[in-house]
Amino acid sequence: MKKQIHGGDIYTCRPKADFSANINPLGVPDRVRQAVADCIGDLANYPDPACRKLRRAVAEFEKVPGENLIFGNGAAELIFAAAFAKKPKQALLLAPGFAEYEQALEAAGCAVRFYDLREEAGFYPGEDYFDRITEDLDMAFLCSPNNPTGVCLRPEFLLRAAERCREKDVLLVLDECFNGFLDDPEACSMKRKLAAYPNLLILKAFTKLYAMPGLRLGYAMSADRELLGEMERMLQPWNVSLPAQEAGTAALGEKAYVEEARNLIKKERVYLTEGLGKLGFTVFEPSANFIFFKGPVGLADFCKARGYLIRDCKNYRGLSEGYYRIAVRRHEENTALLDVMAEAAGRNSGVQERM
Amino acid sequence: MKKQIHGGDIYTCRPKADFSANINPLGVPDRVRQAVADCIGDLANYPDPACRKLRRAVAEFEKVPGENLIFGNGAAELIFAAAFAKKPKQALLLAPGFAEYEQALEAAGCAVRFYDLREEAGFYPGEDYFDRITEDLDMAFLCSPNNPTGVCLRPEFLLRAAERCREKDVLLVLDECFNGFLDDPEACSMKRKLAAYPNLLILKAFTKLYAMPGLRLGYAMSADRELLGEMERMLQPWNVSLPAQEAGTAALGEKAYVEEARNLIKKERVYLTEGLGKLGFTVFEPSANFIFFKGPVGLADFCKARGYLIRDCKNYRGLSEGYYRIAVRRHEENTALLDVMAEAAGRNSGVQERM
Repeated sequence: MKKQIHGGDIYTCRPKADFSANINPLGVPDRVRQAVADCIGDLANYPDPACRKLRRAVAEFEKVPGENLIFGNGAAELIFAAAFAKKPKQALLLAPGFAEYEQALEAAGCAVRFYDLREEAGFYPGEDYFDRITEDLDMAFLCSPNNPTGVCLRPEFLLRAAERCREKDVLLVLDECFNGFLDDPEACSMKRKLAAYPNLLILKAFTKLYAMPGLRLGYAMSADRELLGEMERMLQPWNVSLPAQEAGTAALGEKAYVEEARNLIKKERVYLTEGLGKLGFTVFEPSANFIFFKGPVGLADFCKARGYLIRDCKNYRGLSEGYYRIAVRRHEENTALLDVMAEAAGRNSGVQERM
Repeated sequence: MKKQIHGGDIYTCRPKADFSANINPLGVPDRVRQAVADCIGDLANYPDPACRKLRRAVAEFEKVPGENLIFGNGAAELIFAAAFAKKPKQALLLAPGFAEYEQALEAAGCAVRFYDLREEAGFYPGEDYFDRITEDLDMAFLCSPNNPTGVCLRPEFLLRAAERCREKDVLLVLDECFNGFLDDPEACSMKRKLAAYPNLLILKAFTKLYAMPGLRLGYAMSADRELLGEMERMLQPWNVSLPAQEAGTAALGEKAYVEEARNLIKKERVYLTEGLGKLGFTVFEPSANFIFFKGPVGLADFCKARGYLIRDCKNYRGLSEGYYRIAVRRHEENTALLDVMAEAAGRNSGVQERM
């Protein structure tokens, strides 16, 4: 059975609020609820293997040709499909980073090297990152905004990485799953550069922005249709369920919901950042819908015992005890969490001993 | 984009009835509808990666330890996971057979050999099948009842195959996805032999028996937990959606629905078999919820033009023009299909010329 190494495990303990998964705090949007309800009678049909309706909708939404898209049972499935399709021997990851890149590469029999992000640099990769992209490399993964650190990579950095990868014949997988939560998503996306960089594969998910992780829906974009075709060959024909296809198509119409979420998150991110700062915790500048910080050892267990799940980041490569990630949620929930943390901090940081 | 090579493509043409996908004719059961509707509010949560509730339910239903189960986004996903996990060099398939075995093995870089089923033998594999299981083989796939031929393999045959595979250190993947439609499912299943044959992996699906292909849910059973663990490592943690987990758990309570379906299918299978026979078509003895037969060239297009999708089997390896598969559906639909086919047959088998 699978080990739980991620956030969002509400099945072991039913929490008052789950800050451990980075989901839109507004919850499942109305159009998604309606789309799922409406397709229940059609569940006796296989889903469309080519995701035609969804493909048209996403192509229009992203202003990307439909043939440059591939859909997955969550973006996570596409990480595995990319690794199996590319069959890399050597790959470069950022540490800390999302654990599934490493899992997928290992599943594909690939050796993994790590570029260690430095706390002193605010976990922003340095100039030396580009030197690590060498001829013997087959694949590199970047995530922007990065999970769990929240760092948003600058367009100049991303362009240089794509350029260098193209020179060295390296497939650059850029995870933009949290891009939709940025104040200015377009400015930070590489999707307008896909034609110039056929060595670029961008990952996107419906999971977080539309609060539907239970449904599983993600996609990837690339100008390299041969790569996309090879990825399709690594997947069963019906990998995207009917409810996911219907919900995804419907979700793209939720403009006001996304706008409201962005405004809420922008405001609450400041509130939480200031609150955590006042408690004496070190907060790394957030950009999306989650906040990465350093606090007392044992804080996650302390919060969990009081009904609040936060992401203990000690099992991330390159991190250790005392690093945490919390999602930005609604104001009342954020206030409640800060209260619990104040209690923990008030115990003179000796949280661990009192569990 | 994916090519449509399977049945069930209702998205290209909206048919009056779809006989091309082998789905329970009673449609989505009430408990499944209810379970999906009930979980809509929870879609903002990730599904349980370990499928704990569903696992307990299936373990009890199958009388198999929960640790001997692995769940997939449809059984099709698990075919790929098995191939990626085992990393076979050589595999043996029956021809004709379900296309995804070959697709998955090719994705995993495996060479595939075929045992050609002979029409003269009613597409039943002969004694020579066992000789084809040799030391250099890594994996063999059997499907019972076999898709598309409908042949149900005898327990003695399956036992000998499992025995021979164990001797030669070959992983035997036995697809029992249509087992639930048999008159006596238990008598034809190898699930009670899992402990004796750790080289056996049995595939099962909710898709067909509970008419929920749109939701994607399948599982596999094996006593080889190391193999199951290796398969998990080939998959993302959240491969089974929340609606699929909830629907699957609920579906197992649909005893009367399954009973009613079995009775309906048993009766209608005779009706269709006799009807096709009267039209002069050659019907191969069916055992599950579908019928394999030989008819005039062009029959599928003739039916499609009149709103009835049937499975043209000409693209199956080992078959050619004139072989078809139809699902057993409700009486009125079956009658309507036979009427259309009578029209086709009445045209003196020169169906193709008149399209």
